[in-house]
Amino acid sequence: MPIKRKMKAAVLHKPLDVRIEEVSVPRPKAGEVLVAMKSIGVCGSDVHFYENGRIGSFVVRKPMILGHESAGEVVKLGPGVKGLKVGDRVAIEPGFPCRRCGFCKTGRYNLCPDVIFYACPPHHGAYCEYQVAAADFAFKLPKNVSYDEGAMVEPLAVGMHACNRAQVGPGDSVAILGAGPIGLVTLQSAKARGATQLIAVDMDANRLKLAKKLGATDLVNASRKDTVKEVKRLTDGTGADVVMETAGAVRTTQQAVGCAKNGGRIVLVGMPTTDSFEMPVIEAIVKEVSISGLFRYANMYPPSIGLVASGAIDVKSMITKKFKLEDVPKALDFALRQGKNAIKILIHV
Amino acid sequence: MPIKRKMKAAVLHKPLDVRIEEVSVPRPKAGEVLVAMKSIGVCGSDVHFYENGRIGSFVVRKPMILGHESAGEVVKLGPGVKGLKVGDRVAIEPGFPCRRCGFCKTGRYNLCPDVIFYACPPHHGAYCEYQVAAADFAFKLPKNVSYDEGAMVEPLAVGMHACNRAQVGPGDSVAILGAGPIGLVTLQSAKARGATQLIAVDMDANRLKLAKKLGATDLVNASRKDTVKEVKRLTDGTGADVVMETAGAVRTTQQAVGCAKNGGRIVLVGMPTTDSFEMPVIEAIVKEVSISGLFRYANMYPPSIGLVASGAIDVKSMITKKFKLEDVPKALDFALRQGKNAIKILIHV
Amino acid sequence: MPIKRKMKAAVLHKPLDVRIEEVSVPRPKAGEVLVAMKSIGVCGSDVHFYENGRIGSFVVRKPMILGHESAGEVVKLGPGVKGLKVGDRVAIEPGFPCRRCGFCKTGRYNLCPDVIFYACPPHHGAYCEYQVAAADFAFKLPKNVSYDEGAMVEPLAVGMHACNRAQVGPGDSVAILGAGPIGLVTLQSAKARGATQLIAVDMDANRLKLAKKLGATDLVNASRKDTVKEVKRLTDGTGADVVMETAGAVRTTQQAVGCAKNGGRIVLVGMPTTDSFEMPVIEAIVKEVSISGLFRYANMYPPSIGLVASGAIDVKSMITKKFKLEDVPKALDFALRQGKNAIKILIHV
Amino acid sequence: MPIKRKMKAAVLHKPLDVRIEEVSVPRPKAGEVLVAMKSIGVCGSDVHFYENGRIGSFVVRKPMILGHESAGEVVKLGPGVKGLKVGDRVAIEPGFPCRRCGFCKTGRYNLCPDVIFYACPPHHGAYCEYQVAAADFAFKLPKNVSYDEGAMVEPLAVGMHACNRAQVGPGDSVAILGAGPIGLVTLQSAKARGATQLIAVDMDANRLKLAKKLGATDLVNASRKDTVKEVKRLTDGTGADVVMETAGAVRTTQQAVGCAKNGGRIVLVGMPTTDSFEMPVIEAIVKEVSISGLFRYANMYPPSIGLVASGAIDVKSMITKKFKLEDVPKALDFALRQGKNAIKILIHV
Repeated sequence: MPIKRKMKAAVLHKPLDVRIEEVSVPRPKAGEVLVAMKSIGVCGSDVHFYENGRIGSFVVRKPMILGHESAGEVVKLGPGVKGLKVGDRVAIEPGFPCRRCGFCKTGRYNLCPDVIFYACPPHHGAYCEYQVAAADFAFKLPKNVSYDEGAMVEPLAVGMHACNRAQVGPGDSVAILGAGPIGLVTLQSAKARGATQLIAVDMDANRLKLAKKLGATDLVNASRKDTVKEVKRLTDGTGADVVMETAGAVRTTQQAVGCAKNGGRIVLVGMPTTDSFEMPVIEAIVKEVSISGLFRYANMYPPSIGLVASGAIDVKSMITKKFKLEDVPKALDFALRQGKNAIKILIHV
Repeated sequence: MPIKRKMKAAVLHKPLDVRIEEVSVPRPKAGEVLVAMKSIGVCGSDVHFYENGRIGSFVVRKPMILGHESAGEVVKLGPGVKGLKVGDRVAIEPGFPCRRCGFCKTGRYNLCPDVIFYACPPHHGAYCEYQVAAADFAFKLPKNVSYDEGAMVEPLAVGMHACNRAQVGPGDSVAILGAGPIGLVTLQSAKARGATQLIAVDMDANRLKLAKKLGATDLVNASRKDTVKEVKRLTDGTGADVVMETAGAVRTTQQAVGCAKNGGRIVLVGMPTTDSFEMPVIEAIVKEVSISGLFRYANMYPPSIGLVASGAIDVKSMITKKFKLEDVPKALDFALRQGKNAIKILIHV
Repeated sequence: MPIKRKMKAAVLHKPLDVRIEEVSVPRPKAGEVLVAMKSIGVCGSDVHFYENGRIGSFVVRKPMILGHESAGEVVKLGPGVKGLKVGDRVAIEPGFPCRRCGFCKTGRYNLCPDVIFYACPPHHGAYCEYQVAAADFAFKLPKNVSYDEGAMVEPLAVGMHACNRAQVGPGDSVAILGAGPIGLVTLQSAKARGATQLIAVDMDANRLKLAKKLGATDLVNASRKDTVKEVKRLTDGTGADVVMETAGAVRTTQQAVGCAKNGGRIVLVGMPTTDSFEMPVIEAIVKEVSISGLFRYANMYPPSIGLVASGAIDVKSMITKKFKLEDVPKALDFALRQGKNAIKILIHV
Repeated sequence: MPIKRKMKAAVLHKPLDVRIEEVSVPRPKAGEVLVAMKSIGVCGSDVHFYENGRIGSFVVRKPMILGHESAGEVVKLGPGVKGLKVGDRVAIEPGFPCRRCGFCKTGRYNLCPDVIFYACPPHHGAYCEYQVAAADFAFKLPKNVSYDEGAMVEPLAVGMHACNRAQVGPGDSVAILGAGPIGLVTLQSAKARGATQLIAVDMDANRLKLAKKLGATDLVNASRKDTVKEVKRLTDGTGADVVMETAGAVRTTQQAVGCAKNGGRIVLVGMPTTDSFEMPVIEAIVKEVSISGLFRYANMYPPSIGLVASGAIDVKSMITKKFKLEDVPKALDFALRQGKNAIKILIHV
């Protein structure tokens, strides 16, 4: 089947202005493949760009295609590509690191200062019919993993990286603050690494219910209970071995320290909208905790796909709504207005 | 209920001579508890002592009670014990480290040169009605974990420690050479840490069948296939990330290197009966693999119990036969003669 | 030489009230030794207790002997002590952990909730003629290490633990904020682990001069330059691999994040006097740094003594003033009033 | 200065047949630089190829330029090169990894199956006037580091990687079996990471003398003493924390296990000429040691250069003889016949 020269894409022009347009199909360069998009997720960052036209210092200055959680079918190989063939079903890790800096050479390519990333201005994303990907960042999906699950590998990789940063291990108690998409994949990643107590904290009863289904052993409804007290109570007064802040709120970020055991490990996965705020520094010091930031992920697609394929991680249950590519504007509006009721929205091409 | 002063015990006098005798009930010292034994496993080392009266430099020179995989009920507290009470159901980690040497102080108390260990000459073991345990080495069993499962925590701890030595992680491919009790707990420990490809290798079809039930993704019958070739074939020609030698045979120990990927990690869990033998050293070097020995375990009871309680690890399916304390001689005979057909034999008190 | 039953000790009664008194000589229990004190350091915490009678939740409620950085001669062995003999010259690690909790058993005994520590209320410290120590916490000094250097091992152990928390390695760039005693031992510990760029930051020119002598490759006078800008400038714009906050100031704790490279490691060694304050959380997240607290140290005496003995670490140059035991009140007054001009004050018995 | 189109090179045609010939100057491709060679080391592998025309499965089938330890001056930039300019003095890491496989992406590019490496058949090496290098594998030399020292960074990187594999840390005791070039850089790398006891073992008194100069704390002349006994004696009977086998002999490889402490770490840096041989496997298991192979190195040039520049590591003292490029045949003959008396021979262009 010949590849068209023009394709449909959902292009963000300015805040709240996304248009379905005809644009050129990109061409795969050496080491790249062209992928026909099949399923693409709506991430909080997409909604944020849609609403504000920027995230921090990342500003959309010219029309940009959103979307970075994607899976599709390989339709064309750039020069020199090995290991993939036309027709392969793949999940796309949406980055192009430089491969030459100290970060890339030591396995932390997520910190590459020259990385190009889908839907990170000024680079286009995946709400379109075709996108190019680095061939070694397009990972074959096993037969029993669908395109929808393939798209979900991107947020899952964040949770996997968070657990890697915390070195979650067998028998750990893990408190997950926030039971949105990232909270739920982090919870499942921790469980897949052998954590045995998984305390999900959220203010929304439905999200907690889903957390329970996906492996939470204890639920804390933060609208009714004091999070720190409850986490301590549930851990015999010691606090959790690991605390995952995924809510991206100032309050939960502050509470993370109180929820942690002496010597515990905290990962800040969520991004509060306030740059600087008060933190209980002395408590963090005398408890000898570590607090780790997290920026995207590296080398997390293969294990993530493996755990979805094995059934150890269930991303299907997190998919709550689907839209067509033509309806990306509606999808973003829905996410913006009623996002709290959805866990994960997918775009189908 | 008052504690008797005398109890029944299965005492090894010399090879193949185990007698049921009346002996004194031991008294718990400061920091110790007295435990009424409920379930005790038969380990390969028990059978080995029974057959030969020695294992390497460990020689049974005076009558000794065998058994070290045990669970029971706390019946008496020694002075100063906190955190346990009479009636608690516990799994017993069968060691008493010195707590003062460099190994103990750095968390590797399994290497303590002065450790006392159940059924390691000249110290008595657990085939009896009562034994003492260090209070902090008697771990409370959750309600949904039976005494039989509690006894199984000891071999499980070996598998957990093996996975710890290899730092098994999410997405790893793991080849387990040998599907006996230790192979099966190692397999399950690896799975519980997120390994996604679990290749079980054995010459016995029944053992492989059980391995499959317990999580193996691939089976290799070594009586019909070449182990190294098969493991390579199943891993796209690269070899496994991790190789666990649990068969304790010279041949499988040698094969471990060939089964490993470049940069892979090998753990020698089994103990061949030959002290020194030919190993493919150059292959190990140029592949940059690591080969780690393993001696018992440290700090593995809490996560092991946690994973049994959560259902992530199934030790019940490995229990194939039970005997009464009075029948320990029969049990050891059975294990010696037909052990290959059994996975795990338990003694019930 | 018979041991007296009474000894002189410097006892803190209330803030600014330390008296030289006659008290009973303590007796070594099983596993303990009695040590005749020879040299004891004055730590910031001693001065803090002297000035305020408390540090955070640690309140001096009854008369207490201060001092915890000590070295001396073994004069008596408690029951069961091996590996030491009367006459041994030792540096004393001033803790008595429980040896039975999860922290103790995993090698992190500094986090033991039941640890007893010299001069941590209500336990007496070392400004006296004799103190008891756990035998395995009294470390023999090589011939070429003096008692004064032995006393310095305690603060050095803090710097060593800080470098351990940050996993300082060969070729690392390390920015040390604060060039007081802890800053200087941290700097030297980092150098001893192979760090090649050592940026010392302080507002005091004399301290910076000493930092230079002890291995600093770059100096930043924070009274004249912007710390964050300077550290970045000195690291080709990237920030340092590791940032050690040892000044214990709010401002430097906040600056630590800005001084760190993407993916960098920050250790908060100093203790600001404000419990909670504003921190640049978003910057920490997007840079994927880790921020680790630190509480005392564990297993750091042997390597610290080794590095002092080898000459890799110079603690002698940090000793600026000495007082007699009778003059502890003067020494504390001096430290309180002119401490900024001293690096380390020692008490000689 | 214009670059010539032809240059002199020392080309290996068949065993013992190296000719100085005129060959084409290579051209730097995108991301590469052309370097005018200044100093190139003679490695054991060069001598091995010279003598036998092969090393294991690496066979010289067509004329090949030897040499891979090199430093020189950048004379031309390929397209897209940043961070280097003509005139820069650089040490060359002699590899070109694929940058796309799992090993490359996780920071272990030394295991890349598609890596191209200087003087590894069929790729040319560095005994010539000009060679190309990946720009990010050409590391700028500080002013105080000479070209000769720059060439020495290559073997040093092996020692650094060995210490990284063993995670040598402060206070470690390290036994280094073999005091040839690799033994001496390994010894110095261990010292630079804070090891405090450095036991050098060799049969040659002159080498031991140099080891002493470079930091060895203890010497064992293996021609007169039993290595295992001596290492144990020097470590209070326990064995060394880390054992580095650098002699590449069957006997020392076997002895490495006996020299190690319980729980110790062994790295096999040397390459015995026998593929498989008897190893004390049971001793390795019950002592819970780890034995790690090593293949080249990754990410070791920056810290190595840093430690040479700081003076922590002295490679100059290891340079014992220099030849001109025209005299490479003589240099290789010398190395072959009298190599035991030399430590490191350099070729000057």
